[in-house]
Amino acid sequence: MRTTDPQVEETLPGCRAREILDRIGDKWSLYAIALLGGGTRRFTELKRGIDGISQRMLTVTLRGLERDGIVTRTQYPVVPVRVEYALTPMGRTLLDAVHPLITWTEGHLAGIDAARAAYDVRADSPNWPGSL
Amino acid sequence: MRTTDPQVEETLPGCRAREILDRIGDKWSLYAIALLGGGTRRFTELKRGIDGISQRMLTVTLRGLERDGIVTRTQYPVVPVRVEYALTPMGRTLLDAVHPLITWTEGHLAGIDAARAAYDVRADSPNWPGSL
Repeated sequence: MRTTDPQVEETLPGCRAREILDRIGDKWSLYAIALLGGGTRRFTELKRGIDGISQRMLTVTLRGLERDGIVTRTQYPVVPVRVEYALTPMGRTLLDAVHPLITWTEGHLAGIDAARAAYDVRADSPNWPGSL
Repeated sequence: MRTTDPQVEETLPGCRAREILDRIGDKWSLYAIALLGGGTRRFTELKRGIDGISQRMLTVTLRGLERDGIVTRTQYPVVPVRVEYALTPMGRTLLDAVHPLITWTEGHLAGIDAARAAYDVRADSPNWPGSL
């Protein structure tokens, strides 16, 4: 973080925290965490539950969450192989921290729609300033 | 969202909420919101405070937040033009909702580091399972 303003330093999380936040704040990670909040899931259940995610992206996402200690991966010695994912205790505290953001979003859909409609009217006006 | 499991439907935010979450959950948006939590900022102050963001990406991010009713943009009729950004009242409630996630991240750096170290040891083991 390059800045000369100490107040700016204070308000943003530190560099290490930002690196972690980039990972867990990723939308696929948030969806996987939210789904696993409902209980243990098989890979195929997660794939089906997260619309639009590719097998490759889900694999990468789960591996990152496992490495970060947020998710456990249990492989059962059966044929065909069965793999289950679940939140760790730390992952469960993360779910609690993510929850306000999801709740906020769901509670402000109407407010955001109204703001967008008002913005789009302004943007159509000939006096509307352009960029910056 | 395509799924046949009603429990899965429950645990993930709805499609509209997900579209909004994709936008505000974006890391640049989170950083801009966090910075503006410290007070009104000029464009150049935000650019300096968010390490690694390009002028173009900051412009796009701020315009999205303005359209969503989270940020106000005030342009002063001076030369050179002065533009200031601030959180709206709705944006301030979003900051409150984002705060637990930032706090969680900062409080779990050591736990995540320990999990990563343990994972990397396992991944080096010849018996470690590969993908899925």
